[in-house]
Formats: sequence, structure tokens, C-alpha cells
Amino acid sequence: MEKKSLRKTGVGRRRFLSGSSLLLTGALLGASDEMEAKVEQGQAVPASASQDKESLFSDLVAANRILADQGVVDGYGHVSVRHPTNPNHFYISRWLAPDLVTESDIVELDLDCIPVTGDQRKLYSERFIHSEIYKVRPDVKSVVHTHAPTVVLMGVCGEPLVPIYHMTGFIGAGLPIFDIRKSFGMTNMLITDAARGRALAESLGNHSAALMRGHGGITVGSSLSHSVGRSVYLKIDAELQLQVLGRKIESLAPEEARLAEAGNQDFPKDWDLWKRRVMVKR
Amino acid sequence: MEKKSLRKTGVGRRRFLSGSSLLLTGALLGASDEMEAKVEQGQAVPASASQDKESLFSDLVAANRILADQGVVDGYGHVSVRHPTNPNHFYISRWLAPDLVTESDIVELDLDCIPVTGDQRKLYSERFIHSEIYKVRPDVKSVVHTHAPTVVLMGVCGEPLVPIYHMTGFIGAGLPIFDIRKSFGMTNMLITDAARGRALAESLGNHSAALMRGHGGITVGSSLSHSVGRSVYLKIDAELQLQVLGRKIESLAPEEARLAEAGNQDFPKDWDLWKRRVMVKR
Amino acid sequence: MEKKSLRKTGVGRRRFLSGSSLLLTGALLGASDEMEAKVEQGQAVPASASQDKESLFSDLVAANRILADQGVVDGYGHVSVRHPTNPNHFYISRWLAPDLVTESDIVELDLDCIPVTGDQRKLYSERFIHSEIYKVRPDVKSVVHTHAPTVVLMGVCGEPLVPIYHMTGFIGAGLPIFDIRKSFGMTNMLITDAARGRALAESLGNHSAALMRGHGGITVGSSLSHSVGRSVYLKIDAELQLQVLGRKIESLAPEEARLAEAGNQDFPKDWDLWKRRVMVKR
Amino acid sequence: MEKKSLRKTGVGRRRFLSGSSLLLTGALLGASDEMEAKVEQGQAVPASASQDKESLFSDLVAANRILADQGVVDGYGHVSVRHPTNPNHFYISRWLAPDLVTESDIVELDLDCIPVTGDQRKLYSERFIHSEIYKVRPDVKSVVHTHAPTVVLMGVCGEPLVPIYHMTGFIGAGLPIFDIRKSFGMTNMLITDAARGRALAESLGNHSAALMRGHGGITVGSSLSHSVGRSVYLKIDAELQLQVLGRKIESLAPEEARLAEAGNQDFPKDWDLWKRRVMVKR
Repeated sequence: MEKKSLRKTGVGRRRFLSGSSLLLTGALLGASDEMEAKVEQGQAVPASASQDKESLFSDLVAANRILADQGVVDGYGHVSVRHPTNPNHFYISRWLAPDLVTESDIVELDLDCIPVTGDQRKLYSERFIHSEIYKVRPDVKSVVHTHAPTVVLMGVCGEPLVPIYHMTGFIGAGLPIFDIRKSFGMTNMLITDAARGRALAESLGNHSAALMRGHGGITVGSSLSHSVGRSVYLKIDAELQLQVLGRKIESLAPEEARLAEAGNQDFPKDWDLWKRRVMVKR
Repeated sequence: MEKKSLRKTGVGRRRFLSGSSLLLTGALLGASDEMEAKVEQGQAVPASASQDKESLFSDLVAANRILADQGVVDGYGHVSVRHPTNPNHFYISRWLAPDLVTESDIVELDLDCIPVTGDQRKLYSERFIHSEIYKVRPDVKSVVHTHAPTVVLMGVCGEPLVPIYHMTGFIGAGLPIFDIRKSFGMTNMLITDAARGRALAESLGNHSAALMRGHGGITVGSSLSHSVGRSVYLKIDAELQLQVLGRKIESLAPEEARLAEAGNQDFPKDWDLWKRRVMVKR
Repeated sequence: MEKKSLRKTGVGRRRFLSGSSLLLTGALLGASDEMEAKVEQGQAVPASASQDKESLFSDLVAANRILADQGVVDGYGHVSVRHPTNPNHFYISRWLAPDLVTESDIVELDLDCIPVTGDQRKLYSERFIHSEIYKVRPDVKSVVHTHAPTVVLMGVCGEPLVPIYHMTGFIGAGLPIFDIRKSFGMTNMLITDAARGRALAESLGNHSAALMRGHGGITVGSSLSHSVGRSVYLKIDAELQLQVLGRKIESLAPEEARLAEAGNQDFPKDWDLWKRRVMVKR
Repeated sequence: MEKKSLRKTGVGRRRFLSGSSLLLTGALLGASDEMEAKVEQGQAVPASASQDKESLFSDLVAANRILADQGVVDGYGHVSVRHPTNPNHFYISRWLAPDLVTESDIVELDLDCIPVTGDQRKLYSERFIHSEIYKVRPDVKSVVHTHAPTVVLMGVCGEPLVPIYHMTGFIGAGLPIFDIRKSFGMTNMLITDAARGRALAESLGNHSAALMRGHGGITVGSSLSHSVGRSVYLKIDAELQLQVLGRKIESLAPEEARLAEAGNQDFPKDWDLWKRRVMVKR
């Protein structure tokens, strides 16, 4: 049965790629034309409340692959999206490297991280990162757990991350650094239960992102493309600041950061670009 | 109707890629042979005054994709070219990530940034960067707005950019850094109207490029390949200087920079190379 | 005869890639679906004692290509795996760049580095790295000799490598640096005989990895994916620390490193990801 | 006529890529199998004196593409090989970005840089780099002019390049830095005539490589793969040292460098690897 649904997904992907032809040239151009047609028609950014399940799943798969393609995750890290009509549920992949995720890998969890359909497959041990943030941040519709190495480094190098340009206005006057030692002493660094997730969510507070010492970070957003976009630019900002550690830099003033951030909701131009890259590559 | 012209473009691209065959091997070799044939015949560099519209559009599409491929832009940033016979008009893509631009996305704007054909599609909010430079710099035929992260960083790190090698002679004795705060106080950092564009153009003066604090930069040139080439080497120069910040380096003397720059007009070898990369990739 | 076995391998690879069709689209999707099916069924991590020879060879080929794809090796460096039932034998490629290795290139060596089947092909001059470690470390089932440039650099820059995040807990309280000068004076830096291999193995001691001054490094593990995973994250840790040399950083406490490391055995999510990348690429 | 010979080349390339089939899968596997077969048979490294012209041209094309693929050149830079039987002639591409070079682009020049067959096509203005080195260094069979940005940077940052590992033993006790100002004052930095070439060759002396302030560098070797291999590892060494500028590092002792270098002649494992990459990519 598992295998059957997998086969179905395989077919779906083949269709997406190829239109009426299995020849590569035709396939690539076909996919590309289709995408352009959607962009042309002003397709909405993903994960709006009115989005149907099929389209949401497709976007969640794309988000997983985009995070891998953009270097935000490697084999580890994950992304979730809140259920569009039931705020006490969210969608996330089962235990799997993000770049390998297909629609059949998506599971629906409640805020205790229990699969609502009785799915028995192995789950991410750190899914509590997501559930505990959804509990206390009703504004948040999507969460990314980043493993970008440079983000890890900014969490341990002793210099606060600052917004270097208008794309990273969401950093504002700085981001919290969650240090698991403070509440839990010596650990394996992982957010493997609700208590640890709660502590992380508290550290996040009302910020758009947080760093995690010796581990990675999280970004949140009002949509899939919002949290994903923030995770990409968080990584870029970290890469930049690491090149000028210890120097005085003219970062954005807090009010500039606030004004710039107001224009970065959903990153629609990036989303179209990033999605095309990961879909055409297959 | 929009859709129809889009479909036409799709066909055009398929033809370019494939010659008489849709098989990938044939397509790739076909395109490559065609390009070699042109190079062999000493094809002129793009955007000369005598260039016909079809060829200019093809070059503007290539320029957009080259900027993405070379890391000068991501989802943001843009490139324009002045109309070859009407100096009060210029061509630029509608609102779209540069790597996704096709010929049907190109719009013709006047120097008030109004589409001359009544096109209703969404436009870049920062198109005033281009129009205001064209107004005061008759020598400029093309403008690139770069978002290269390392160029951003050189605009905020407190050390002036210098020409490290003969490919970056256009940096000369240094580049202006436009700080939007000086004229407009707290903003979202964007050049969203003619007044902001004018201030940026004034800051640029007679230079070949300018940095924009907390945002990016611009390069200008006497042709598409000239502004594009400068944007690529501006990024490389920034990447290099960031590795030796605070050290004394033996950069080009101003006279060496001037002499070297005289030979870098149009970057024809690079243009052929870069164009092949982005066209074969599709 | 050589040629015949080679041809057989060629056929095998063609079959793997294409399923029933030689068209590229079909080939890629076919391979991908097959892999997903395996992942779906919870395929065991490689190099367990019960693994059959065919599957072990396939994993060893994958390991070679993964090391190249992840930047752990270039033309140099190698990986071996201990024979699953005869602890005095191990498998390694003949003399060949890792990315070019196919199953027909694998040789079986005893712990004197002699091919057990009388194979006459040229062998790695540094195969003694592997044999001497297998002699003294019965827990070790696989050895990687890394040439990652940043790992080389951490062996000569005078600052001890520390575990920056939970993925590099295996670094623990630090790694030994093997300096061939101490025992052998002036050399070509290579481990070309048993004496040099023995000295390196002594330097390694009970650690999970060691750096080699002016040369590279080694990682060991209880399986192919374990040693390979460690080599990838050793490289990442080195890349990170090089960006903050001379700064105080909040690396993992020794007890955190130990606890984190307990969860990193075999790197199964990474292995699936990395293997798909190198197999689909062909 | 030009066009005719070009077409012939196109056919040649198609043949090389595809064997008997134009389908991509077949083409890729075909090329790959062919290469493995050669490797299997212990094919000699390129550019030996006994090599026939067809094979030498094929290697020179590969060398051009390898340099681009490995980041040693972009649109600029070039590679030449001395004629195997007439030491007063050498082969080099006509004026063209290295990655675009095919066999029909190769010209044969005498040591005055005049095409021996009366070829009228545009030539590299800096071909005098090659001719003047061939004049004074009979041991040199191939010359690479590198534009690797990090090599440029090591020529202007005030710290001498040192051999960080056994792959860069050819750096020995250090490399000369050619400063064109010393002999010619203010210039465009280019080696555009014999006098400038002679000064550069004098600066090179008996070294294996030299840096050129504000421009790039050169490597020489006893074969194509030797000069190419050195150019790749020169770039890697520069990338590494730039990460630890100002620190004391444990580089190779001069005697270690000499002994290590003795084993790096021709870089045969790398050559096979690099060649496969650029040939399969097409």
C-alpha cells in the first residue's frame, strides 16, 4: 500500500516534469513554460489560508528541496506549515533528508506531535521545535529549522548578528541565542521533547528567528515562503558578517530594518526562482 | 493575448535549443555549433546602436540570466538597456526574478518610467535607478543594479574598494557609496521614486559604478556586456578585498587602472562564455 | 579479460541508470523511484556485518563518489571497508581517483597490503594507512583518508580543532595531529610503508579522526557511512573554525560532544541523500 | 572554408560524445566507458614527445576546459603546449575564452608568435608570455597563464606564498612576484610584446611558477597535465593561505617540498578525473 502511493507520486512527478513528452528537452521546456504561465497569471504566494491541500503539499515539497538547494539544510533540518484551517495541526515530512521529500512523505501532526492519521513511520525527533512554536505564536504559519553552518557559527562566535542589508531587516535589533545548557545542563543538544521545545519557543519570543548554540537556528513566518525566505537570507547575513568580524560596520538602523522588513513579506520573486530551480533539476 | 505571445516565446526558445531535433544531445550540440559559427564570424558585441530589436531583446534576456548565473543578482536586482535609436526610452524586464526573464517579459519605458505601450503588468519598484541615470549620463547605454552580497558588504565595512587587478581598472581611484539616509532619513532603503533615483545618479557622478549602503550597487556601461562585465568583476574585486581587509595591498596605481580599463570595453570573450553557459543550461 | 569485466560493469551501470529505457528522462526518474522505494522500506545503513558482497561493493563505490562530491577528496584520498567476515582483509579501490571508481576497480587486500587474488593492477601507495589502523583498532570497520584542503589547513595553523556543533561531537576534546617529521625526518609526506602507517595509527590512538600536517587527515568508523559522515563533518567543522581563528568560541563542552556523538552513528539521513546525489548525477 | 572546417569539428565532437548513438544516456555512458577503457590500459599522461598530433590537440582542448572548470581561468587566461618534435613552435588557441576552445581553434605559432600556417584569425595579445618562456626554458613543455582571483590576491597582499601541503611542493622556498612597473612603469598590466614577455621569463627564472602583481600568474611544466596540475594546486594553496594571513603556519620544510614535488609529476590521477568532468559535461 505504501508502495502503491509511492508509485502514484512517481507518476505525478513525471507528469509535472514532462507534459505530454518524456524526452528531456520537451520535459524541461514544458515545465518551464507551465511555470511561466502561472507566474504570468499572478499566482498567489504559497500557504495562504485559502490554499487547497494538493497545492499546499506541492509547496511543502518545494520548500524542502529549496532549503537543500540553497544550503539552509543538508541531511538535517526541516520545515513545517500549519494546517490552513485547523490551527492545532501542522504538516511536516516524516524522518527524511529534506531534499528527498515527496508528497507521500508528508505527515499531519497535532500539537503534541502525534500523527493524526495513525501513521507509523519514523518521525523527526526534533518535531517539538515546530509544535511548541505553533502553540505560543498564533501569527506563525510556518517554521524552518536551519542547519546552515554559518548560522551555527554566528551562534557561538560571541558577536551579535546584525542586519547588513534590506533583505535581512527581520533581524531587527538582534536575535536571541538559545543555549540549551541554561535550562537543561549537559545534553545531546537536540530538541527531543516538549519541554525543550517550550524553552526554545520562549527564547524565540516575538522575534522572527533565533540562533541555537552548537546546533543551528530557526526562522518563522506567516507563510511557507516567508519562513523559507528568512532562512535563506539569515544564512547570507551570517556569511557576510563572518567576513568582517570585529570591525565596525554600518548595519541598518532599527527603523530602517523595520521599514525594509515590511516589504519582504513572502519573498515572491525569490520563491518563483527557487522553486523553478529545484523542480527543473529533477 | 498575453498567453499567446508567451507561447510564441516558448516556441522560439525551443527552436533555439534544438535545431531540427528534440533529442537533448542534438539540441546541445546544435546550439553550441551555432554559437561557434557566430563567434567564428566575429559577431559584434551586443547593444551597439545598429543592433536590431530582435537581437537586442535576445541579448537582454541573456544579460538577465548571466547576472543570475554569475551571482550578481538572486531574486532581486535588474538590468536595462537604452533604446538604440530613441535615447529617451529604455528596455527592462517587468517585475520578475532575472533568471526567469524571457523576451515576452521585456517592457519599454520612457524616462518617467511609464510603459510606452500601455503595458499593465507589475513593474520593478526600483526602475527609477535606471531612468534617472539615463537622464544625466548620455554616455551610459546600460545599467545593472547588483545585489551581490559581497558588494553590499564592501558598502558597509568602512574600507574603500580598490582595483586589485587589471580586470577592475574601472574602480579607478575609488567608488562613491550612496547612503540614502543622507537625503531621505529613515527609509526602506529602496529607490522607489524619481527623487531617490536622482540622488543616486548624483552620487554616481561620472563613475563607472557606485555602492549603495545596506542595499547593493550599480554599474553602468556603453553596452549591455559592458555594464554586465563590470558588475561581475565588481563582485570579484569585493570578494578579494574582503579577504585582506585591514592589510596594505599593492592595488593598481590610478594610471595603471586607467590604462587597463581602456582594454576592458565590452568584455567580448567573457560575454561569449557567459552567454553559452546560460543558454546551454536551459 | 580485464576489458570484459569492465564491459560488464558498464552494462551494470547502464541498467542501474535506465531501467527499461535509454531516454534520459526515463532513466533519471527510474533511478529516483527505485531509490525512494528502498528508503521507504527502511533499508539498513551500509557495511553491517551481515551485508552481502554485492551490496557492500555498491556501497564502497558510492562512498568513493560521495567523498568526491562532498569535497573530501579530489584526485587523491581514498576510502576502505573491512571485510565483513574476515577481519584480516579489507576492500579498497585500485590506484584511481575516487570519483572514477566502479565495482571492477575494487581489490581485496590482506593486512600486509597484498592483493589476495593476485591482482596485478597498480595500487594506492598509501594503502598502509588503512591496514595499520585495522591491525590495532578492531572496532574500526572503515577508514577514510581525506584531502579536504581546509582539513589540511587546520593541521598547520596552530589552533586546535574544536567541535562547533552537535554534528561534530566526534572531535571531542580535540584531535591528534600526526607530524611525520617526528619519526621519519625529511620525507615526501606520504604513508608509503607499514612503518609509517604504524606511526600514524599510534598517533590516532582511540580517536575518531586525526589530522596529518602538510597532507590531510583520516577518519574512522564502525561502518562505511560512519567514516564517510565523519569525514564530511570534519571538513565542515574546519571550514567554520577557520572563519573565527583567534576568537574565543562557545564550542561543545566535552560532555555535550559525547552525548551528541552517541546519536550520530552511521549518519543514515545523510547517507541516503549523498548516495542519491552521486548516483543520479551519472 | 572557415565554416566548413568548423562543421567538420562539430561532427568530430558529436562522434566523441556519442559513439554510435545520439541519445544522451548512450552518449554519456559511451564516453565514460571509453575513458575507463583507456585508464584501464594505463594510458600515458598527455604531451609526451611521442604523442601524435590528434591526441595532443585533444589534450590541449581538454586542458583549456579543465582550467575553466577548475576556476583557474574565466574568460581570460590561456594554456599552450610546445610542439612535440619542433621545439621552436608551440600550440595555443586563437583568441577565445578557454572553455569554448575546440580543436579547430588551435593555432601553431613560432617563437616570434607568428602563425606558421598563415592563419589570419585574431590571437591572444598576451601570447608572448608563452613564447618568451619557451625560448629560455628548454625543460618547459607547457605554460598556463592563470587568472585565478586568489592567485592575483596572493601577488598583492604582501605575504609570500608558502607550500601548505605535499600537493604544492612546487612552491618550494617561495615564488617570484613579477611587477611590471619595475621595468615598464605605468602600463595596462598586459604582456603584449616580446620585451614584456622576456622580463616575465627572467622573473620566473628556474621556478615552477610566478605571480604577476595586479594580473594573475603563470605555471610551467614538463607536460600539459603538469602545468595544468600546478595551476590548480597553486590556486588551492592561495585559497588556503588567504584564510590564515598573518599567522605562523607549519608549512613544508624546503626539503619536504622538494621530496613531495618529485612525486607530483604529471598529476595522472587528477588529469583523468578532470578530463572526465569536462568531457562528460558537454
